[in-house]
Amino acid sequence: MNPKNSPKNPIGVFDSGIGGLTVAKSIFEILPKENIIYFGDTARLPYGTKSKETVTRYSLEITKFLLNKNVKMVVVACNTASSVALPYLRKISSVPVVGVIKPGCRAAISVTNNFKIGVIGTLGTVQSFAYKTQIHKIDRNINVFSKACSLFVQLAEDGWTENKIADMIAREYLSEFKSMKIDTLILGCTHYPILKGTISKVLGKKIKLIDSGEEAAKEVKRLLGEKDLLNPQKQNGQHKFFVTDFQKKFKEISERFLGEPIHDVKKVKLD
Amino acid sequence: MNPKNSPKNPIGVFDSGIGGLTVAKSIFEILPKENIIYFGDTARLPYGTKSKETVTRYSLEITKFLLNKNVKMVVVACNTASSVALPYLRKISSVPVVGVIKPGCRAAISVTNNFKIGVIGTLGTVQSFAYKTQIHKIDRNINVFSKACSLFVQLAEDGWTENKIADMIAREYLSEFKSMKIDTLILGCTHYPILKGTISKVLGKKIKLIDSGEEAAKEVKRLLGEKDLLNPQKQNGQHKFFVTDFQKKFKEISERFLGEPIHDVKKVKLD
Repeated sequence: MNPKNSPKNPIGVFDSGIGGLTVAKSIFEILPKENIIYFGDTARLPYGTKSKETVTRYSLEITKFLLNKNVKMVVVACNTASSVALPYLRKISSVPVVGVIKPGCRAAISVTNNFKIGVIGTLGTVQSFAYKTQIHKIDRNINVFSKACSLFVQLAEDGWTENKIADMIAREYLSEFKSMKIDTLILGCTHYPILKGTISKVLGKKIKLIDSGEEAAKEVKRLLGEKDLLNPQKQNGQHKFFVTDFQKKFKEISERFLGEPIHDVKKVKLD
Repeated sequence: MNPKNSPKNPIGVFDSGIGGLTVAKSIFEILPKENIIYFGDTARLPYGTKSKETVTRYSLEITKFLLNKNVKMVVVACNTASSVALPYLRKISSVPVVGVIKPGCRAAISVTNNFKIGVIGTLGTVQSFAYKTQIHKIDRNINVFSKACSLFVQLAEDGWTENKIADMIAREYLSEFKSMKIDTLILGCTHYPILKGTISKVLGKKIKLIDSGEEAAKEVKRLLGEKDLLNPQKQNGQHKFFVTDFQKKFKEISERFLGEPIHDVKKVKLD
C-alpha cells in the first residue's frame, strides 16, 4: 500500500476503448463524490482478439499512465485485460487494482440455484478461462459453460441492439445455454449490457443476467470503504477522460455507452 | 526514384492485419517470381474505425519498416490506409507506393454500362470519400453510392460467410443498391472478397463485383514492368510475413484469407 495514498485522489478506470464506459457509468452512479479518470485505448482497440502478451503490454502502459496521475485505485474495466493482465499490473502498482472477473463471479455464485452458470465474452476472455477458473476457486461444484460472442461488440457499437439481426445472432450464440439449463449468465464483456434487452428476450426471464461491470463498481465502493479511501468531499466528483484516438462515431457511441455526453476528453499518445 | 532500386528487391505489402492477405494472394498468383514481404499490424487492427491521424501514423511506421527491408515497391493493401495516408507515405518513400483505391476505381469505370457504381467498405474508407473522389477525377458523370458494412469484417474472420445470418446482414446493407440500380459494386475492403458468394447472391448476377485487391495486383505488375523492376529470377519468389501480434485464431483466419498455410512468419514490435 502506498503510504501517500489519499482519499482525495481520483479513481483510475481503463478499458481497451469506450466499452468500459458502462463500468464507469456504474461507478459514477454509486460513488457520485469520487473524482474519476477514465482511459480508453481507442487507437489500439479491440483487445478481445489479441494475444495475452500484447494485451498485458498495453495494460501495463496504461496503468503506468494512471499511476502518474496519482490515482488511489486502478479499475480494469476491460474483461480481456482483467482475464490476462491483473497479476502483472498488481506487481507494478502501489495502489489496489480491481478487475471485473472476481466481482462478476461472486455475484453469479450468490444467485445461482442449480449451480449451472453461463459466461459470454470475447474470444480472449473465453480462451483465458478466467471466469471458469475464478468460479471454481470459490466453488468446485459449479458447472460453467462459456461462449465467445464476437459479433456482439460491433452490434453494440452500431446501435443494432434490438432489431431482427441482433435477435438472430443472439439466438445463434445463446440457444445452447438453454439446453444446458443454466439459470445464471455472466455478461463478461463491457459491450454486452447494451444488448441486455435482446439477450434477455432470447434466454427468457428465468435466466438471471449478471453485469460484471456493475458488480465491479460495488467492489470498488466496498474496497475504498474498507481502506478508508472514500472521498469525503461534499460536491460531486469530476470526471476526466483520456483516449488514444478519437475513433469514428466517438461522440455517438460514447453517449450510448455512458448514457450522457462526454465533455472533458483529451487525446494522448502512449505508443 | 531511388537509383539503387533493383528488380531483385522484394515487394513490400502491408495491411492493418490479415485481411490484406487476399491482396497478397492475388500478387502471388500473377507475380510468382517476386519475393514478397507482407506486414500485418495485428496488434493495432482494425484501422477502419480509427481516425485519419492515427491510421496515417501507423502507416508511416510500417512504410519505414518496409523501406528498411529494401523493398522496391510498397503496396498499401489496406483500403482505409489507402484512403487517407497515401500522400504522406509517398513523401517519405524513395520507391513507388501503390494503393488499392485507384486500381479499383479504374476497373469499375471500365465495366459499368449505366454509370452507376456502388462502393462498400469500412466506416473509415466510406467517410474519407476516397473512392468517390477518385472516380470523379476520372469521370465526373458517374453516380457513386457508398455504404459502410461494419459487420462484414467480423463475419469474414469468424467464417460465417455463407449462412443465414450472413445472408440477412448482407440484405440489410445491400438492398438499397438494388433500388439505386447500380450495375457495378466495388468491394472496398480486403475482407469482403471472402463474402463474395453471399454478396453476389443478394445482389444478383447482373451486378458486377470489383475486387480492389485483385486490381491492385494487376497495377503492381504493370508498374514494375514499366519501371523495369520485374524480378528476372527463374525460381519462385520467397514470401516472408511479419505481424505485430499473433492474434487469436491467427492460423485459422490467415489460411482462410491466403488460401494456404503461412510458414515464415515473425512477430515484431513497432510501437
